[in-house]
Amino acid sequence: MGKRKICIINGPNLNLLGTREKEIYGSSPFEEFLFQLKKQYPNVEIDYFQSNVEGEIINKLHQKGFGETGIILNAGGYTHTSVAIADAVAAIESEVVEVHISQPLAREEQRHLSLLAKACKGSIAGFGLKSYVLAIEYFRHK
Amino acid sequence: MGKRKICIINGPNLNLLGTREKEIYGSSPFEEFLFQLKKQYPNVEIDYFQSNVEGEIINKLHQKGFGETGIILNAGGYTHTSVAIADAVAAIESEVVEVHISQPLAREEQRHLSLLAKACKGSIAGFGLKSYVLAIEYFRHK
Amino acid sequence: MGKRKICIINGPNLNLLGTREKEIYGSSPFEEFLFQLKKQYPNVEIDYFQSNVEGEIINKLHQKGFGETGIILNAGGYTHTSVAIADAVAAIESEVVEVHISQPLAREEQRHLSLLAKACKGSIAGFGLKSYVLAIEYFRHK
Amino acid sequence: MGKRKICIINGPNLNLLGTREKEIYGSSPFEEFLFQLKKQYPNVEIDYFQSNVEGEIINKLHQKGFGETGIILNAGGYTHTSVAIADAVAAIESEVVEVHISQPLAREEQRHLSLLAKACKGSIAGFGLKSYVLAIEYFRHK
Amino acid sequence: MGKRKICIINGPNLNLLGTREKEIYGSSPFEEFLFQLKKQYPNVEIDYFQSNVEGEIINKLHQKGFGETGIILNAGGYTHTSVAIADAVAAIESEVVEVHISQPLAREEQRHLSLLAKACKGSIAGFGLKSYVLAIEYFRHK
Amino acid sequence: MGKRKICIINGPNLNLLGTREKEIYGSSPFEEFLFQLKKQYPNVEIDYFQSNVEGEIINKLHQKGFGETGIILNAGGYTHTSVAIADAVAAIESEVVEVHISQPLAREEQRHLSLLAKACKGSIAGFGLKSYVLAIEYFRHK
Amino acid sequence: MGKRKICIINGPNLNLLGTREKEIYGSSPFEEFLFQLKKQYPNVEIDYFQSNVEGEIINKLHQKGFGETGIILNAGGYTHTSVAIADAVAAIESEVVEVHISQPLAREEQRHLSLLAKACKGSIAGFGLKSYVLAIEYFRHK
Amino acid sequence: MGKRKICIINGPNLNLLGTREKEIYGSSPFEEFLFQLKKQYPNVEIDYFQSNVEGEIINKLHQKGFGETGIILNAGGYTHTSVAIADAVAAIESEVVEVHISQPLAREEQRHLSLLAKACKGSIAGFGLKSYVLAIEYFRHK
Amino acid sequence: MGKRKICIINGPNLNLLGTREKEIYGSSPFEEFLFQLKKQYPNVEIDYFQSNVEGEIINKLHQKGFGETGIILNAGGYTHTSVAIADAVAAIESEVVEVHISQPLAREEQRHLSLLAKACKGSIAGFGLKSYVLAIEYFRHK
Amino acid sequence: MGKRKICIINGPNLNLLGTREKEIYGSSPFEEFLFQLKKQYPNVEIDYFQSNVEGEIINKLHQKGFGETGIILNAGGYTHTSVAIADAVAAIESEVVEVHISQPLAREEQRHLSLLAKACKGSIAGFGLKSYVLAIEYFRHK
Amino acid sequence: MGKRKICIINGPNLNLLGTREKEIYGSSPFEEFLFQLKKQYPNVEIDYFQSNVEGEIINKLHQKGFGETGIILNAGGYTHTSVAIADAVAAIESEVVEVHISQPLAREEQRHLSLLAKACKGSIAGFGLKSYVLAIEYFRHK
Amino acid sequence: MGKRKICIINGPNLNLLGTREKEIYGSSPFEEFLFQLKKQYPNVEIDYFQSNVEGEIINKLHQKGFGETGIILNAGGYTHTSVAIADAVAAIESEVVEVHISQPLAREEQRHLSLLAKACKGSIAGFGLKSYVLAIEYFRHK
Repeated sequence: MGKRKICIINGPNLNLLGTREKEIYGSSPFEEFLFQLKKQYPNVEIDYFQSNVEGEIINKLHQKGFGETGIILNAGGYTHTSVAIADAVAAIESEVVEVHISQPLAREEQRHLSLLAKACKGSIAGFGLKSYVLAIEYFRHK
Repeated sequence: MGKRKICIINGPNLNLLGTREKEIYGSSPFEEFLFQLKKQYPNVEIDYFQSNVEGEIINKLHQKGFGETGIILNAGGYTHTSVAIADAVAAIESEVVEVHISQPLAREEQRHLSLLAKACKGSIAGFGLKSYVLAIEYFRHK
Repeated sequence: MGKRKICIINGPNLNLLGTREKEIYGSSPFEEFLFQLKKQYPNVEIDYFQSNVEGEIINKLHQKGFGETGIILNAGGYTHTSVAIADAVAAIESEVVEVHISQPLAREEQRHLSLLAKACKGSIAGFGLKSYVLAIEYFRHK
Repeated sequence: MGKRKICIINGPNLNLLGTREKEIYGSSPFEEFLFQLKKQYPNVEIDYFQSNVEGEIINKLHQKGFGETGIILNAGGYTHTSVAIADAVAAIESEVVEVHISQPLAREEQRHLSLLAKACKGSIAGFGLKSYVLAIEYFRHK
Repeated sequence: MGKRKICIINGPNLNLLGTREKEIYGSSPFEEFLFQLKKQYPNVEIDYFQSNVEGEIINKLHQKGFGETGIILNAGGYTHTSVAIADAVAAIESEVVEVHISQPLAREEQRHLSLLAKACKGSIAGFGLKSYVLAIEYFRHK
Repeated sequence: MGKRKICIINGPNLNLLGTREKEIYGSSPFEEFLFQLKKQYPNVEIDYFQSNVEGEIINKLHQKGFGETGIILNAGGYTHTSVAIADAVAAIESEVVEVHISQPLAREEQRHLSLLAKACKGSIAGFGLKSYVLAIEYFRHK
Repeated sequence: MGKRKICIINGPNLNLLGTREKEIYGSSPFEEFLFQLKKQYPNVEIDYFQSNVEGEIINKLHQKGFGETGIILNAGGYTHTSVAIADAVAAIESEVVEVHISQPLAREEQRHLSLLAKACKGSIAGFGLKSYVLAIEYFRHK
Repeated sequence: MGKRKICIINGPNLNLLGTREKEIYGSSPFEEFLFQLKKQYPNVEIDYFQSNVEGEIINKLHQKGFGETGIILNAGGYTHTSVAIADAVAAIESEVVEVHISQPLAREEQRHLSLLAKACKGSIAGFGLKSYVLAIEYFRHK
Repeated sequence: MGKRKICIINGPNLNLLGTREKEIYGSSPFEEFLFQLKKQYPNVEIDYFQSNVEGEIINKLHQKGFGETGIILNAGGYTHTSVAIADAVAAIESEVVEVHISQPLAREEQRHLSLLAKACKGSIAGFGLKSYVLAIEYFRHK
Repeated sequence: MGKRKICIINGPNLNLLGTREKEIYGSSPFEEFLFQLKKQYPNVEIDYFQSNVEGEIINKLHQKGFGETGIILNAGGYTHTSVAIADAVAAIESEVVEVHISQPLAREEQRHLSLLAKACKGSIAGFGLKSYVLAIEYFRHK
Repeated sequence: MGKRKICIINGPNLNLLGTREKEIYGSSPFEEFLFQLKKQYPNVEIDYFQSNVEGEIINKLHQKGFGETGIILNAGGYTHTSVAIADAVAAIESEVVEVHISQPLAREEQRHLSLLAKACKGSIAGFGLKSYVLAIEYFRHK
Repeated sequence: MGKRKICIINGPNLNLLGTREKEIYGSSPFEEFLFQLKKQYPNVEIDYFQSNVEGEIINKLHQKGFGETGIILNAGGYTHTSVAIADAVAAIESEVVEVHISQPLAREEQRHLSLLAKACKGSIAGFGLKSYVLAIEYFRHK
């Protein structure tokens, strides 16, 4: 049997991880975390995509969303403003798990509402980069 | 006299027509509908553009908006969130007709407000793909 | 085969067309437009009803709503305040198309919400008297 | 001693009972239910009035509201929009019981607020046509 | 020169004056006040109309609104809910003065907003039946 | 055939009936009313439970909610704040009728919304202790 | 018998009348209008006070508010923001009539709510400087 | 080294699992799931507590919250209404993970806001009973 | 003459005083403060009750509320969510003084509204544990 | 050691105490209460200032706010509207205690929010003139 | 040619600059900054006015607003509450530039809305005392 | 010493300057203004970027935001809708000055809130193209 396929899609500003707030995540970028992740889950094929462009996130969801790939989506600031990404999640067939590094409900009011949550399978928020790990655990336990 | 020129601009996720919800629109993509449309209106020159990227829709509006082309715009999820597309519609010279396949006011509350309506010539919503046909009829009766 | 039957129902103040704002619609009342409309669509049987009384609009919807007549409804100011007309549209069997001469979303905030839209087949707004023409086109293309 | 007098006033669209949603109420109109009601309560004189016109409901409230008649009012869609009917209920001397066939609080948000409740003696909602029966029971137990 | 023509239009429930709240206005109906008013202003021709039906108030505004008649409008409960009457006031040519017997802003919140005020020449509220007198004074001082 | 079983569940502060506001209900506590009720309906087995603790009301709903008992629930102040009791009503199988002694919609705004109404069979409010009698009538007429 | 005493209190920016918007009121300041007013009503003793300071308006209300003086108050921009002036009007014994030159409800939303209206005897708005004349008529007809 | 200690606290109505909605969770109660969980994680000591009483959940949080126990909290309906439980979570020292079986953001509006989220370490929602498993995974990966 | 009787009722999480935030209140629990209080006011009989259960607070209010005991209530998180406790305070005869250690209006928005304030004699907030002392002073000065 | 210095600052309309609502406070003005207060607290030096002008209250706060004077502030109607006074309280060094004679939360909604509370040390409301006494007690117990 | 005339008007609490928050602005008052400013712009005649009284700010705007003086206005806390100052800015002829030392949109919500912005030529906020310098630059570049 | 580096980033539709509204800005595009700007500030190195794509603006902010470049950002319609751009501004190290040609607070309500303001150093709005000049002045005066 082939490997479980997972695609992590990161939204705007998440490419800056490692550059800012180093005291929290260390000085390593998301790519480094990804490297550890792949080592930790050798039987999972992990694809990675990051874009600051709302429409490219939609394009990627369309591309990955009709096969057997589980999708982990951290849409960053688009979480709270993008009806279009929510529509894309609802339109595709793959299960999408919404993750957040911090807990949006503990931040400013404009981050309290997730437009995406309704369309996603489930949400995981507040566990730092471990939120991604738990999302992978979900797909593994399926 | 030359043909009436019309450009249909479709926003995010409308490229998935025919892939999802086949029981409603059949298994044919928008391109097939377009083919029928062109046959039905041989004297109208119909241009077609689709993008999931908000800014590319703005680019296309700028490009088509200063000539003699009538524009039919289904901005999908951006209808409810994009001040920028609304500004683009207001800035160009062409008449823009807003169309929707379903009736947004019969769906979730986040779809009740169209930011675009004020800048458009008029709106047509709820008639399925026939909404596009009626928009063409408008330009033909002008 | 018999003619397509359509009933146009106009709500409050629409009897004043031709009396006010003549620079827009000319000095002719709605009846004159109706006369042109009938000439333009000889194969359509067009019935016309206007009332300023909310309940009489409901009565007319009940009377016309269980046969083969397509209904074109411009409920004027009742569009934004009448749960009762919306209930009537939902209760009858005929398809009802909501039309507006101007674009309510481009006017004062109290005109932004249509209570009727959800119950209607579709909406056409902003095309002047041509909104009625497009509504008839819808019924003709069915 | 004379019979207890009760007047049932039904608002907009309630004349369509029996025509629509037959699976719920059977194919019999409100008149048939009324016939049963009169048989069930031979010692109660039950008057019935229905109108789709807001002002005629007010007229009827004025006419019946200064004698010994108990009033059962199902104002339909006007429940949520009519300050004028609420004023009429407050102005008359008779006790008015507000009834609803379904439970408005379980439906769309525009039906959550009853403008009439404050002026009525009490409200009964959600029991189907039995809501009327319970209202009659109230007047009988007085 | 002919007499100044004025039409007083009273809305819902104002026909009950004299029947209710006698301690405030005495036991005399509005007609009696009207009789005094006509005696007080012999040079003014005062017409009077009352209806509980929103649409009939609109009809009367249309009928009186294109001549030389000044209109005094107390729309009662429709003041706060009728976009249609507001549209009628805006559509006609006559000046309309909005009057209220009590001060709506001192009552429940649902009476705080007048939809009519914007379309009227001016508003007079809170002076009891004297509000009508002051409205006549306005037309006399023009 | 056995007796109809009904359980009345009263929420917070309803144990004070008879202690306060004696001019309305007399100086007798709810127990005395219950005694009369049982005499009036000898064929109905009436159970009674009162608690000021939200969770104990839920416990009682769980305990009574899966048999043949009809439930009459006056949740007092919890009516407006308890999602948990609403969930309990929705989860059990018995029909629950919501009753209120006074009309919440005629009191302060914080009492206008019933979180329970949606989950209940129906609501009866404003008839004083007779609200309970009408609820029993409902179960008897089933 | 002495003259009727009236005090006109004008709030912020009303000292600029005649300086701005001359096409509406002519080039004469409020003082000139006051001069005409005194000539027109020789039997009324008209006092005048204007201040841009909220607290001085309160001081003047206190000073004039416990004698036989009727007060005409145009609080300008403080109408919509001053709980303190509203408290002053409520605390004094004299009747206060609220006047406005324009109709606040026809202007921006921040002018729609009058905090003063509830405490005043009545309101007159929208009649230009004639609003003051009508207020004097009210005191004369008392 | 001793086992990792975890306490699962379930709020109102979660004791009904297995009784209702059997098509989703099977006919087995939460206790059965718990039994599987313990077998799956032999090195974790899992404590379980369920109560319908808000204050008892607070008591349990106080009791478990100052040792080395990780807490998994599904507060059910209290999630959206209890400032007091949120205060308890904020006051104790243990990390608390908020879990939900379904996705509250995909349900009615009254479930959209979690008062608890801000005080919790993180949230996991929408994965059915697997939400609990993921929460345990979080504590195991710490 | 007997001693003045006062009952302090503390709501949820106040039993943790001394355990958390020791830098503010020292490491002593509320009981220690109580001990000082009793020494400071030897002529006052001070009763103390704490519960995390909303309903038990209501029970205690009922028990203490009909004698000569003055009640000092710090309802903690229930201050902002409990209509039921507010009803209890309104129903009893004793004067209740609302106290808060911190100033709720200086904290998060969900703490800005006190449902209890309206029913209480008065409120004292923001003085730390001295808020209780001031409340006792109030009862002593009566 | 010198006396404790306290300055009482009263805002708009509080100079009318004794003139209005005599049944509550007796016919004596605030000065008389002040006289009693000084007698009651001979070791406290009590300064008094009242103004109806928002800016003069700010001036006084600036003047008294950088020494050793404790400030008791009853800002009257400015409590709810003055960002500027709140800024002044936040800018000075003295502790300011907010007092109110009545309980604002039991009055109209426009009095529910205190803009000042956040900047003050604490608030005391609802105890009549005793609110001032309790505020002095606070400063004495410091 | 004469010097460019500019008048700086500072609102409430800005007289405390240099007294508070010395670590930001140094220990020098606004006067010192003014002294530097005058040296920096020898060709500009800079007038300065500060008041804590709303009405005196209006007076100054009236006095300076009809000549050739450019006005720089920092209305402090009145920015968010004063319709009257906004009216004054709109009524005068001079251009008014709104300045703020900090960025109001980054502070509490009550500071997010500027009532003045609409009437001013433009706004400069967030640059510390340099906001004044930029405003002067604007007038110099005209 | 090297030149001061500044990057101007213009958002959606600002590429149309010179094409529309020529009566305001002349018939020259932004490039022409840029040419003047560079001539006016020979010691400043001015970079220019315009895009209609939200994500490309984020990309440019990332690229320029970690060196010594000062950034002038006119995000056009994205100002009011983009949490993602606001996050980008907050994440980078360079100071960003928000500029607007017109005053958003004087336009429609959807333009009143700037999501970016909080993250920017300061804002300059309403001065036409001079807003850019003032922003450059800010960087020059640093």
